[in-house]
Amino acid sequence: MGTESSSNCRVTFLPSGICAEVPCGSTILDAARQASVYVTSLCGGDGYCGKCRVVVESGEIDAKPTSLLSRADVQQNVVLACETKVLGDLVVKVPKEHMLDTAQILIDADAHRFSELPAAAAGTRFWHDPPVQKFYLDLVPPSIEDNLGDHERLYAGIRSKTEAPHMQTGYRVLQQLPGLLRQSRWKVTATVAERWGTHEVVQVEPGDTSRSNFGVAVDVGTTTVVAHLVDLNTATTVDAEATYNSQMKYGEDYIRRIFYANQHNALGELQSLIVGDINNLIDTMCSRSKVGMNDVTCTVCAGNTAMIHFLLNLDPTYIRKEPYVPAANFIPPIRAAEVGIRINGRGLLYCLPSVAAYVGSDITAGVVATRLYASRRLALLIDIGTNGEVVLGNREWMVCASSSAGPAFEGSGVRNGMRAVTGAIEKFSIDDSLASRFRTVGGQPPRGICGSGLLDVLAELFRVGILDRAGRFQRQVAPERMREDEQGLLFVIQSASRQDETPELVLTQADVANLIRSKAAIYAAVSLLIETMHVDMNDIECIYLAGGFGNYLDVSKATFIGMLPDVPSEKIRFVGNSCIAGAKEALLSRAAYDMIREVANRLTYVDLMTNVKYMDEFVKANFLPHTDIGRFPSVKAKIRQNQTTTEPR
Amino acid sequence: MGTESSSNCRVTFLPSGICAEVPCGSTILDAARQASVYVTSLCGGDGYCGKCRVVVESGEIDAKPTSLLSRADVQQNVVLACETKVLGDLVVKVPKEHMLDTAQILIDADAHRFSELPAAAAGTRFWHDPPVQKFYLDLVPPSIEDNLGDHERLYAGIRSKTEAPHMQTGYRVLQQLPGLLRQSRWKVTATVAERWGTHEVVQVEPGDTSRSNFGVAVDVGTTTVVAHLVDLNTATTVDAEATYNSQMKYGEDYIRRIFYANQHNALGELQSLIVGDINNLIDTMCSRSKVGMNDVTCTVCAGNTAMIHFLLNLDPTYIRKEPYVPAANFIPPIRAAEVGIRINGRGLLYCLPSVAAYVGSDITAGVVATRLYASRRLALLIDIGTNGEVVLGNREWMVCASSSAGPAFEGSGVRNGMRAVTGAIEKFSIDDSLASRFRTVGGQPPRGICGSGLLDVLAELFRVGILDRAGRFQRQVAPERMREDEQGLLFVIQSASRQDETPELVLTQADVANLIRSKAAIYAAVSLLIETMHVDMNDIECIYLAGGFGNYLDVSKATFIGMLPDVPSEKIRFVGNSCIAGAKEALLSRAAYDMIREVANRLTYVDLMTNVKYMDEFVKANFLPHTDIGRFPSVKAKIRQNQTTTEPR
Repeated sequence: MGTESSSNCRVTFLPSGICAEVPCGSTILDAARQASVYVTSLCGGDGYCGKCRVVVESGEIDAKPTSLLSRADVQQNVVLACETKVLGDLVVKVPKEHMLDTAQILIDADAHRFSELPAAAAGTRFWHDPPVQKFYLDLVPPSIEDNLGDHERLYAGIRSKTEAPHMQTGYRVLQQLPGLLRQSRWKVTATVAERWGTHEVVQVEPGDTSRSNFGVAVDVGTTTVVAHLVDLNTATTVDAEATYNSQMKYGEDYIRRIFYANQHNALGELQSLIVGDINNLIDTMCSRSKVGMNDVTCTVCAGNTAMIHFLLNLDPTYIRKEPYVPAANFIPPIRAAEVGIRINGRGLLYCLPSVAAYVGSDITAGVVATRLYASRRLALLIDIGTNGEVVLGNREWMVCASSSAGPAFEGSGVRNGMRAVTGAIEKFSIDDSLASRFRTVGGQPPRGICGSGLLDVLAELFRVGILDRAGRFQRQVAPERMREDEQGLLFVIQSASRQDETPELVLTQADVANLIRSKAAIYAAVSLLIETMHVDMNDIECIYLAGGFGNYLDVSKATFIGMLPDVPSEKIRFVGNSCIAGAKEALLSRAAYDMIREVANRLTYVDLMTNVKYMDEFVKANFLPHTDIGRFPSVKAKIRQNQTTTEPR
Repeated sequence: MGTESSSNCRVTFLPSGICAEVPCGSTILDAARQASVYVTSLCGGDGYCGKCRVVVESGEIDAKPTSLLSRADVQQNVVLACETKVLGDLVVKVPKEHMLDTAQILIDADAHRFSELPAAAAGTRFWHDPPVQKFYLDLVPPSIEDNLGDHERLYAGIRSKTEAPHMQTGYRVLQQLPGLLRQSRWKVTATVAERWGTHEVVQVEPGDTSRSNFGVAVDVGTTTVVAHLVDLNTATTVDAEATYNSQMKYGEDYIRRIFYANQHNALGELQSLIVGDINNLIDTMCSRSKVGMNDVTCTVCAGNTAMIHFLLNLDPTYIRKEPYVPAANFIPPIRAAEVGIRINGRGLLYCLPSVAAYVGSDITAGVVATRLYASRRLALLIDIGTNGEVVLGNREWMVCASSSAGPAFEGSGVRNGMRAVTGAIEKFSIDDSLASRFRTVGGQPPRGICGSGLLDVLAELFRVGILDRAGRFQRQVAPERMREDEQGLLFVIQSASRQDETPELVLTQADVANLIRSKAAIYAAVSLLIETMHVDMNDIECIYLAGGFGNYLDVSKATFIGMLPDVPSEKIRFVGNSCIAGAKEALLSRAAYDMIREVANRLTYVDLMTNVKYMDEFVKANFLPHTDIGRFPSVKAKIRQNQTTTEPR
């Protein structure tokens, strides 16, 4: 390729061998993005997460000094991809930790696992009444005695099948009518969509196509995008699929992506990425299930407020700036094609409503999926993710808050943290001899620790006394498992192994502090809502745990470290992906869709960031399990018991 | 232009000198259309109206033999443009009768004359509440305590000003919101449009633009298009303008245009023509009144069913085929830009509803403008045009019919008939010495006779006995004014004059038959509706005469020939252009718009074409004034009186 300008440099990524030509002076991260080589970057390229570690095998670079790399790292040519400029042709090795290879399969399993809402959570079903319906109409041909106009005849036909006081028809549909009705001998199928108080005739097709009406429910997650293809007639889930959110290359949390979008005027690009992901999911499901794209007449999307903004290319700038205001919580139904989603060209996109900048439609969908809004009994819904949203209430009242727990349990801000993909430690325990056991996702050699694993590690180290209640390492308890580096004490979870290229996996003092802050944020949010509403922790009759993390959570351990309130375990229910469950209910029932909108209106948002009491609760929760151990009677009992057993040692 | 292919011929039209290059073998009418030289053609080029007479000054032609040209015509090189093929370069003279030159001014005057609905007709006013309104919103900026989303804040602002239970926002408007609201410091103007049960936020502008909100009401007539520019805030008519419908070159009546559209797949072209006319009117008014096109937020169009189909490019084929079914009577509000109307890019087009293929929104608008639907008193609305639509009813019930009167009173099918443009005889009388007097439009030398003139001629000839009750010429009464040609007896209205190039103007026996058929059709429609509803002619307390023709109608003469029922003249009211009056009310009041839709639903259509009783009534009305002269006591009295005075002659 001798035609390349001399100011371009070629970067070859190993082990894939994929190349990128970039202007010299670009960063390795830029090159990786251009080549679509996935390199983990939590901070979006700002040089402070330390996740985008790659090894420069050959070539000239200019790497900024950083405290995020150890001397040993530097000697082994490890660099931060975002902080390293390409000055000549490079060969760069991307370590295994970055790989997303087998994640797809795992998420597929998840997607399928939660394709049906657990009956226990739902209890009752909404009336089957999808917002987009097809009606087969065998119209009486006009005669001198009955010379209604074509359009009026169509409306009369539709109204003989459904209540539709206010109707609308698009201009293009109207134009087709005279020819279409006659060619099809007055036997047609009308697709009718609910649009906030009116019914729109979305399309008219010849003959009877009413049996082919599909919808797609999408959980537009910051990390993963999950989609379900649903037969709107039979209310069955035909297929499910998931993928990583391609926006991740611009930051693993959405605040970073908003920064990136603002700085690079890249909102359109971020929209294209998420829309591309959704289209890929729809394509995959449709071709696998042999469903024509034209027969997919609607899609319901739910997600956090920022993701819905990205999806719609709505400016999310003010979400991250005080007073934290979204462009819209309630999005009117629009044509899916307007944002680029490829279903029926006139099919609709329903975005479920959010409550505030940090309480999105994943939560409103969850509140409806769990029926929290309908029950007499007081319940708590906790969605543990980056923010850790909490809803407290019953059919009389509901309050919600976003705890800004931070992404520690998603592996961010933790040295060997990673997402729950192949090779991530997801279970961990220590026995009496302080020997540890773990299980990895996919049974592969460990390459990091995911959320459930981190929670286990924290709980186990605390249980056996390696961590004290303030979260400080007690080196003397297990000196053989501890060592010190420039950043202080650390606990070795797994030693490095040349044999299977396993890296050393550790938990640092800073990691512990991050994890405790995260769990404290969630507990403090729960605690504050309870205090605000003048109820008691014991009044809570049910705790719904939602979110991908929730499914693998060991409840007793989560209570043990003080993340969850100390309630009998039978009160706790995993509800899985309640976001997609709610989205699917909206896809199948206008009543559910309307209820989610009502819930979004009824939910009272409590802002924690400006709440003095919350800071107070948060500080008190920055202990294991809590400053006031009286709130955790079961933990108190266990600690005493452990002290009894471990004291002799 | 030596590059022209030898298979092209050049046609030069005199007196304008405009040329067209057409493939040899094209008709002169084709060439005229290409050159945009107006040549009257009522049949749309099918060779049977005989109106497209032109003179071939030089060049080779191939003219079909036709009975529509006299031998004298043929000797003077008169041809029918539609039946004459161009075989070489031609010079063609277009006679004065075709010219539209000064018509514009006349219509301007008309447009202005009817810019305000006569108070007598309206009586009460609808509540001022335009379907598209602008609201200036001084929004409270968000704060931590009040962190409503931008979209919800906007809705709350709008809802503080107007009832809007169901609201919608276009995607593009939603996208602008965050930036726009902040740049304008939360002071914005929202344009909100009623769309059949929902309110759509059509645009949001910075600052206070609420005072600039305009709408355009359009009477989309088959012959003339009239538009009024209305200030929606002050409910005043800012300007009015009118033009000829450019579709006329494809046929003066819409049935011909439907034929043409079907045969030449020219529906799109016909739409462009009428949309172009409307755009020209809007452009003219906006620039004259210094109103920005962007401030015109809506347009209300009314017209006969076919014209509304042309405007929207809806297939009108089935309007003219049994059972005469329109594509739509009720057209949902759509964006004006969708049909190409140039107002605010997101502004709306409201087409008023029609009742049936031959009772259009000009009639429903008229029923509301006259308040016929609201009165306890029985009234008749007669719109005399090509069809002669009739509405009979009161607030309890309403029936309507279209009489297919034919266009004789519009000058079609009458040898020297023409529209009411400069040089048309509009008033005519005969004195006792059988000398005649007339008045022309614009006081110019006569070149034809328009509707009101034809009615006068018919009534006067009947009054003085030149026509008997069967409509037969009585040559002996005025032998000096009569002569005979190959088509039979004719009455000379005006002899030819070399001096001012005045042609001979005559009324033939065939003309009389056509005119009598037209008046009979209208009377028979009235008569049939009265019989159907079991009321009596004397029960009618008011007759509203609508339509351009109506304004110049001599009521006593119309009664004298039996066109109108014989009622006291004080019962008859001219309501002028009730179509645009109704359209303007809809522009200014949602209640009026809703009422017109209700009226369209309430009006019971009586089909005359398949009605045996109607044929019976029609045959009986084919006399002057009627077979049963007892129905016209005032005429009976006059005839007796005339006979008394004329018998001595």
